[in-house]
Amino acid sequence: MSKKSIYIYIISDSAGETASKLAQASVAQYEELDITFIRKTFVSETAELMEALEGALADEAIIIHTMISKEFIQVANAFCAEHDIFCMDLLSPLVNEISKRSTIEPNRIAGAVHSLNQDYFNRISAMEFAVKYDDGKDPKGFLEADIVLLGVSRTSKTPLSLFLANKNLKVANLPLMPQAHIPSQLWDVDPKKIVGLTNNPDILNKIRQERMRAYGLNPDTAYSNIDCINEELKFAADLYKKIGCVVINVADLSIEETASIIIDELDLQDFSFFG
Amino acid sequence: MSKKSIYIYIISDSAGETASKLAQASVAQYEELDITFIRKTFVSETAELMEALEGALADEAIIIHTMISKEFIQVANAFCAEHDIFCMDLLSPLVNEISKRSTIEPNRIAGAVHSLNQDYFNRISAMEFAVKYDDGKDPKGFLEADIVLLGVSRTSKTPLSLFLANKNLKVANLPLMPQAHIPSQLWDVDPKKIVGLTNNPDILNKIRQERMRAYGLNPDTAYSNIDCINEELKFAADLYKKIGCVVINVADLSIEETASIIIDELDLQDFSFFG
Repeated sequence: MSKKSIYIYIISDSAGETASKLAQASVAQYEELDITFIRKTFVSETAELMEALEGALADEAIIIHTMISKEFIQVANAFCAEHDIFCMDLLSPLVNEISKRSTIEPNRIAGAVHSLNQDYFNRISAMEFAVKYDDGKDPKGFLEADIVLLGVSRTSKTPLSLFLANKNLKVANLPLMPQAHIPSQLWDVDPKKIVGLTNNPDILNKIRQERMRAYGLNPDTAYSNIDCINEELKFAADLYKKIGCVVINVADLSIEETASIIIDELDLQDFSFFG
Repeated sequence: MSKKSIYIYIISDSAGETASKLAQASVAQYEELDITFIRKTFVSETAELMEALEGALADEAIIIHTMISKEFIQVANAFCAEHDIFCMDLLSPLVNEISKRSTIEPNRIAGAVHSLNQDYFNRISAMEFAVKYDDGKDPKGFLEADIVLLGVSRTSKTPLSLFLANKNLKVANLPLMPQAHIPSQLWDVDPKKIVGLTNNPDILNKIRQERMRAYGLNPDTAYSNIDCINEELKFAADLYKKIGCVVINVADLSIEETASIIIDELDLQDFSFFG
């Protein structure tokens, strides 16, 4: 079992986010794997690229590259062919196919996906919006939001709001408690923009006990009591029914999965592409 | 110029995030392109996959797929070969190469990258941390944070904190103003965990005038006055020098680029891979 670590070099003339995503998704398919990631990003000179390639050769690495410079792509692909290095050129096949179909040449601007255009600033605004209108802080946000998330404590409202903000969507969220006041603005929001989040009582019970323990408190408080949780969930379910909104049980869903379902259910999918 | 839209089908047995990233990065290389994205994600049955493939065929689409089910991959690749559809199978080459080198078989669990494991819950905690300790709300966060961001208004502190949180890093941020009090906790933080953000005065001037206009106010207030901005930037620069922290000028950088620089400078890069 004293195998050598597998080296994966991520080489990019931009931030290398696409290659990182691919590497993460692939590595997640293995329980125990000794992987060393080396990131060589924002490569801007051939010498820098050569240094990265020589490093990969020395480490007998797998190379995943996302480069848009024609020269860099040629240098990298030729080097890998010559030295028989396993190399994935992620951008070229798709860019070449799009150019063939559209008869338009790519700009070949490194990091174009991060260009500081209007979409980019809208995304920053969406993130600031999510922080400003998190946790029901200001119900005025409901009327400006693309999505209003409702949910009892521990249904992932905050991370979900932030994840959706990164896709250029303005999200406000409101925690639900039976004794809490429902702001009147909620009734002015189009129910098609509202998502009711729920969870399984036993999961909430477990999560909340953990949370109390983490705070150094007695785990068996009203917050984690199963009858109280059931009462909260019933209150939430009744409210969702009254509003007529989409309801999602997040019990077995990750943030990414829940976000994807929300985008589909609320017919918002286009937003997620032009961030 | 009445060309047909180019259809890109993103097909995945998970959320399709890797394929989306690739599509975005490629499309960003073209100024004007009529692209229609169709997402068929969380595919769980062969019939569903066939429907997606038939749709792609009818739309003469480009297919990008990220699937881990062996059966789905075979069905998709065979269908595309038969009908001469341009198809990128993103996961297979890398997964096959990793298996070859490690002699370990992949789990082939769809969405494994989103599994609700400890890393996942840590990432959620990191997001909640970023919201809790945004905008200097509670200086106690400085001591628990992996990164403390300092910066005058409009240096991207909030979106940067959230972006880094999504990479499993706990970030607190503090806005700097000459008249503001610097919390004493800041001096107890390891300077190697602190990042001073700055920007060009003319850019801040422009952004802040815009912001005032957006609020329906006179754009020429002290907030946007160039002398005041220079004074703020000098105050920040002096503080950064006193602390001895990394300084980053975000003027020409996107959030992704700034985050990547921070991860490299603070030697945190491993965190970004196991989210």
